[in-house]
Amino acid sequence: MTFANLDAALALIKFDKDGLIPAIAQQHDTGEVLMMAWMSKDAVVETLTTGQVCYWSRSRQSLWRKGETSGQTQALVDFLVDCDGDTLLLKVDQSGVACHTGRRTCFYTAIRQSGAVVVSDVQIAPEDLYK
Amino acid sequence: MTFANLDAALALIKFDKDGLIPAIAQQHDTGEVLMMAWMSKDAVVETLTTGQVCYWSRSRQSLWRKGETSGQTQALVDFLVDCDGDTLLLKVDQSGVACHTGRRTCFYTAIRQSGAVVVSDVQIAPEDLYK
Repeated sequence: MTFANLDAALALIKFDKDGLIPAIAQQHDTGEVLMMAWMSKDAVVETLTTGQVCYWSRSRQSLWRKGETSGQTQALVDFLVDCDGDTLLLKVDQSGVACHTGRRTCFYTAIRQSGAVVVSDVQIAPEDLYK
Repeated sequence: MTFANLDAALALIKFDKDGLIPAIAQQHDTGEVLMMAWMSKDAVVETLTTGQVCYWSRSRQSLWRKGETSGQTQALVDFLVDCDGDTLLLKVDQSGVACHTGRRTCFYTAIRQSGAVVVSDVQIAPEDLYK
């Protein structure tokens, strides 16, 4: 994947005081929201140029090539920026599962009148994801 | 809408050092991601108890009852928290448009090889939203 003007693209993006921007990953065809993570400028550049989603891990303070360890990669389908330029929406094709718990999405707990309800099943055992 | 145990629900949510958490709003039936904004604890409580989405405006430093001025309200359909407890996904029923530009979604600019492309049309003129 090549970009006519990567600098012009980056100029649309407002990184916060820590140099990061939140990025929502959505399965491109089903519309399922998979996860939200953060991107640095380097993560944005790597994602746009390789077509494989790369985040910034705030806990590890390093680039986080999604699926590098687990094999559960995200191929970039479309890259959107919001009206304020301070949030990204990544349309992706998720291989397997997005969540470290082995669920398709990280958003599997619903808060309802009766209490917290788990609404998504584990598809891959976590011990099989990180062996 | 009443909650059996609002405190137990709040215990699942990790607010950041500023007392805020990012909240993604998604149209419940079409799956369209509409916007991302921030919630304080008070905004979460108001949203869960009224069923109408209320954010925290970082620019105005006040509760932001979505649609209070524009009429473009968000009725809460489901309230999800992610695996880390640090991001919310709100399934909503959006009245009209979510974006202050009069577009259905705030994510209307795609960054593609050829450059930035506007991929959503204005549905309501901004001057009609805020008159």
